[in-house]
Amino acid sequence: MRVWQIGDGFGLENLACVEREELSAGPGQVVIAMRAVSLNFRDYMMVQGFYNPRQRLPLVPCSDGVGEVIAVGEGVSRVVPGDRVMPIFAQAWICGRPSRDKLKTTLGGPLDGTLGERMVVDQESLVIVPAHLSDEEAACLPCVGVTAWNALVCEGRVAAGDRVLILGTGGVAIFATQLAGVLGAEVFVTSSSDAKLERVKALGAAHGVNYRTTPAWGKAIKALTGGEGVDHVVELGGAGTLEESLRAVRIGGQISLIGALSGAAQELNVLPILMQHVRVQGIIVGSREMFEALNRAVSLHALRPVVDRVFEFEEAREAFEYLASGEHFGKVCVRIA
Amino acid sequence: MRVWQIGDGFGLENLACVEREELSAGPGQVVIAMRAVSLNFRDYMMVQGFYNPRQRLPLVPCSDGVGEVIAVGEGVSRVVPGDRVMPIFAQAWICGRPSRDKLKTTLGGPLDGTLGERMVVDQESLVIVPAHLSDEEAACLPCVGVTAWNALVCEGRVAAGDRVLILGTGGVAIFATQLAGVLGAEVFVTSSSDAKLERVKALGAAHGVNYRTTPAWGKAIKALTGGEGVDHVVELGGAGTLEESLRAVRIGGQISLIGALSGAAQELNVLPILMQHVRVQGIIVGSREMFEALNRAVSLHALRPVVDRVFEFEEAREAFEYLASGEHFGKVCVRIA
Amino acid sequence: MRVWQIGDGFGLENLACVEREELSAGPGQVVIAMRAVSLNFRDYMMVQGFYNPRQRLPLVPCSDGVGEVIAVGEGVSRVVPGDRVMPIFAQAWICGRPSRDKLKTTLGGPLDGTLGERMVVDQESLVIVPAHLSDEEAACLPCVGVTAWNALVCEGRVAAGDRVLILGTGGVAIFATQLAGVLGAEVFVTSSSDAKLERVKALGAAHGVNYRTTPAWGKAIKALTGGEGVDHVVELGGAGTLEESLRAVRIGGQISLIGALSGAAQELNVLPILMQHVRVQGIIVGSREMFEALNRAVSLHALRPVVDRVFEFEEAREAFEYLASGEHFGKVCVRIA
Amino acid sequence: MRVWQIGDGFGLENLACVEREELSAGPGQVVIAMRAVSLNFRDYMMVQGFYNPRQRLPLVPCSDGVGEVIAVGEGVSRVVPGDRVMPIFAQAWICGRPSRDKLKTTLGGPLDGTLGERMVVDQESLVIVPAHLSDEEAACLPCVGVTAWNALVCEGRVAAGDRVLILGTGGVAIFATQLAGVLGAEVFVTSSSDAKLERVKALGAAHGVNYRTTPAWGKAIKALTGGEGVDHVVELGGAGTLEESLRAVRIGGQISLIGALSGAAQELNVLPILMQHVRVQGIIVGSREMFEALNRAVSLHALRPVVDRVFEFEEAREAFEYLASGEHFGKVCVRIA
Repeated sequence: MRVWQIGDGFGLENLACVEREELSAGPGQVVIAMRAVSLNFRDYMMVQGFYNPRQRLPLVPCSDGVGEVIAVGEGVSRVVPGDRVMPIFAQAWICGRPSRDKLKTTLGGPLDGTLGERMVVDQESLVIVPAHLSDEEAACLPCVGVTAWNALVCEGRVAAGDRVLILGTGGVAIFATQLAGVLGAEVFVTSSSDAKLERVKALGAAHGVNYRTTPAWGKAIKALTGGEGVDHVVELGGAGTLEESLRAVRIGGQISLIGALSGAAQELNVLPILMQHVRVQGIIVGSREMFEALNRAVSLHALRPVVDRVFEFEEAREAFEYLASGEHFGKVCVRIA
Repeated sequence: MRVWQIGDGFGLENLACVEREELSAGPGQVVIAMRAVSLNFRDYMMVQGFYNPRQRLPLVPCSDGVGEVIAVGEGVSRVVPGDRVMPIFAQAWICGRPSRDKLKTTLGGPLDGTLGERMVVDQESLVIVPAHLSDEEAACLPCVGVTAWNALVCEGRVAAGDRVLILGTGGVAIFATQLAGVLGAEVFVTSSSDAKLERVKALGAAHGVNYRTTPAWGKAIKALTGGEGVDHVVELGGAGTLEESLRAVRIGGQISLIGALSGAAQELNVLPILMQHVRVQGIIVGSREMFEALNRAVSLHALRPVVDRVFEFEEAREAFEYLASGEHFGKVCVRIA
Repeated sequence: MRVWQIGDGFGLENLACVEREELSAGPGQVVIAMRAVSLNFRDYMMVQGFYNPRQRLPLVPCSDGVGEVIAVGEGVSRVVPGDRVMPIFAQAWICGRPSRDKLKTTLGGPLDGTLGERMVVDQESLVIVPAHLSDEEAACLPCVGVTAWNALVCEGRVAAGDRVLILGTGGVAIFATQLAGVLGAEVFVTSSSDAKLERVKALGAAHGVNYRTTPAWGKAIKALTGGEGVDHVVELGGAGTLEESLRAVRIGGQISLIGALSGAAQELNVLPILMQHVRVQGIIVGSREMFEALNRAVSLHALRPVVDRVFEFEEAREAFEYLASGEHFGKVCVRIA
Repeated sequence: MRVWQIGDGFGLENLACVEREELSAGPGQVVIAMRAVSLNFRDYMMVQGFYNPRQRLPLVPCSDGVGEVIAVGEGVSRVVPGDRVMPIFAQAWICGRPSRDKLKTTLGGPLDGTLGERMVVDQESLVIVPAHLSDEEAACLPCVGVTAWNALVCEGRVAAGDRVLILGTGGVAIFATQLAGVLGAEVFVTSSSDAKLERVKALGAAHGVNYRTTPAWGKAIKALTGGEGVDHVVELGGAGTLEESLRAVRIGGQISLIGALSGAAQELNVLPILMQHVRVQGIIVGSREMFEALNRAVSLHALRPVVDRVFEFEEAREAFEYLASGEHFGKVCVRIA
């Protein structure tokens, strides 16, 4: 079987498609024939060696994928061959709260990931794919979908009528926009592109603010709420946007800190957090139990993650380059024939 | 000014329209010219003397209403004359948890209620009416709307994809159906009438079960969920339906106990509650803070409570008789010119 | 190896000590040499055929026990031989919320239980014993301890200063008294015996009411709280005591429904639940994650479950008879040499 | 009557004792004869003009105090003359969540504070003093006590066995140490002084780390927990200590951001927040409902805030200087004869 791996060193130029021995299922395990993978920015950072320079190599990158169960080991009862499944991001985070041990088991680093023809995973570490989704659409859910669910539903308890500000139009942002709509929230989105703002409005966002033409977007969004501020911010920019997010959020509101696209470290004034009784909640995907709840909502509302472009398995490197370009709206996927 | 009151004794035949002195606003108070009232079954029970036989008379019945602020006392800052407002059910339950003192201040008993031409209430004990609602529609919100919000959102934390079973098609039931839809839930409704089931489906319910033709409706609904059971039951029947509700709910689910239309007392086997880790949550309307959150959702989604029929002020007695007949679908209102 | 089992039919007279084949550990499993067992009333009901008349026989009864790991199967990493461990009640309830599938895996019915010389359990389905506890003391924790933790901490969120009423002086009651003290609560206990009330006061209860001499104990306890009522009731009596518990609890308080020693079914008036905004929360033990949190508290505060009497393995039948007599104060245990 | 006020300009040198007209109680108000005040660092910052340079002058500083009700206005029912009471910090935050309007009503800026012989407050904006406390001890509760309660109980849900790290030995820190003990937590404290660490151990702290001799105290405390990290950090240092706090906290733990004694702004790497699923919760005191719950716990456990030194009313300026010196252990109070 073929897998893409980073072998001798980090860097996209070292990402190579190699042959590995076929896998078999031990007790409680299943073999999955992968059909589609979606890329996250984390995967790109991992390949480049920026995410975790001490990651052991070789590593099969990527954590999101969909495949078909083709073999099951002794004692497997949760799935049967033919089932279409998605491995979960942190293989040991089945339910309950996160822990060090659970977060050590994430796919695409430290564990081998989804960008190969076959994978072996524990039967406990996967979920069934909602029937209405294509392979590529479903491949977007494990990180992006579960992260949005954890932020908005589990930690955020967003209810109908709540105001939710979503930063940008990346993968988590677009899906969070769709999900927040299903929860009955009023969605505000920022982007550097008016065209992208139009597209998220078509997906249900009520308000868009161009942060390039409105650098003081935090204040602008607060004004849109009558001066009260939004209840919840899906913060994907990190240190570079947090101060504006703190201007946009209401007293006692929540900022779900999910990404750091604008930078990880920067001078930050913490006073607004305490003076405004704000909760800054870090989110690192979520558990299988969250994923199952998400899937129920996805199925009921026939939600479809937005796929920007699908690359062939052989084009994995081009897929990463396209992701890094930042030109996409929606997810970048790889099809595995 | 005219008010309807129960004077010399309980009973609909003792409900009389009488003249009272005009009211004025003390410090922190406002005078409201009432425009519409909606009736709840509690009001009927109160008039008949069934709800609280020790209630002091005379009493102006009814707790739900809408009116216009026509005078404000010293120190009033939350509203101005001309504002369209709704008094809250428990006048002292502004926020936080319920308490004995807060629940002693409910309108329509022990305090005088909304069925009169003018009311005086503390400025803290009212909310602004969502602009898109007619007076009669808004008059349905204070008990029915806040109860559904408290049950589904505050205590129930219903999220998208959750399965919510709603018993019957009374006022709370219909509004809970609408609200559960806005929250992204999958709604199951029971009724004795196929025609009414069709009407709640038009309002967003996914499934209807006729409890007359399917007396074992608890089991039937559980089967509709693949045997798992619903996450939440809006229990309006009381002791007479609770055992079936316990058959319909999932392990670890919640039953919001709101009404007792089928009877208050009956032999009950409590084992399913503990064996299935079920939560039975009593709900007695809610706070002003809940009402304000509800109104935000009502406004955002342009929700409209269903009004069955509007009576003139002079027809208040007929309105009660119509309510008691049980023939309505949606709320029974009284217009105050 | 020897186990006690109910073989040909239910009834204590059919409980027999038999030889079974030695057990070995499959992948992910461990073999435990049992050292001590504690009896719950559920075990007695099970043996008698009252708990689940459809339970398949033979069955090894009892769900609580302590033993030493003596062998581990392939892939076991959570424990090593020599570790002193307790199997968890619902073997599949590791974390998260309860479910049908998780609650199907309880020890002592439907699965074979702890009353034998050896057991095999999955490595995920056990916890390490707090070091300061004797085998018999620790054997009291799996049901009694986790139930009290789930009720008071997970579902009840009891905080310092809260008033907690605990019904009776059985196993859960005594441990809940100890635990509520550690949480900073003010504890009220009922009993039919003044002597037992003195003993729970020595364990930290602030107030005791003899329900034999004070049949209206609900009102009496409410009076002790200045008329406000208690925040939380640990309800172990069931249908026979629930109405008095509803008199004792405050508006908006919680009743954790755990046992039904006074009867499962009885006429019940549900109005107080809804009129007082009460939460009745069924509790059926809890998850491994709860057990681990409990053990941390037990270790920090050197809590010791109260053991009334320890029987030898050969005296298991006498132990059940003693349990059924109701004369004990604290847990009845069986030592396995 | 005499009050201390900042008149013509900010700065301790402008703090002056002046005569003001006697106060009377309007409708719903009470007049309080103040007996004791405690100083917070916020008060010192306010006097110096650092807290809010746009604060209108003159201003009576300080937000914490105790006094006796000496007159009540029309309609006052919650207290009677002779009651010993404490005004609440944010006069309009009675219950529920914080809001802009509620947080605009804080004593000692923008509203006149407690450092005078008499105050007028709304009857809703005060609580009764626990009987066992001296005036000076009680005067420590409104900010310090409620802040600790909000952080540990309301937002933190600290349970028995939880590990709580408390930074420093200031007013909030010492009371949080006492309160965390009552909640059953294991307390870790940092300080620059071994002597102070000994004193907090005497108050119940289990572990102390000197951050002067152990600059990498975050790692040191994590090591003390077996590498898992603490569940909760009471973060009083702000930007200057947050990175170490993030090293000390467990995956999924909470950091309650309360103070910024070490600085408000600094370069901060936000990645640990998201990678470790940490919650950073800003805390700005709390509501009257929280205060009442706190008082119940304080009374039940006879908790006594630690008073370092009491100054006479005439020595208010010296009291501020002593506070600024940082030499105290416990609260600095002013007695008002």
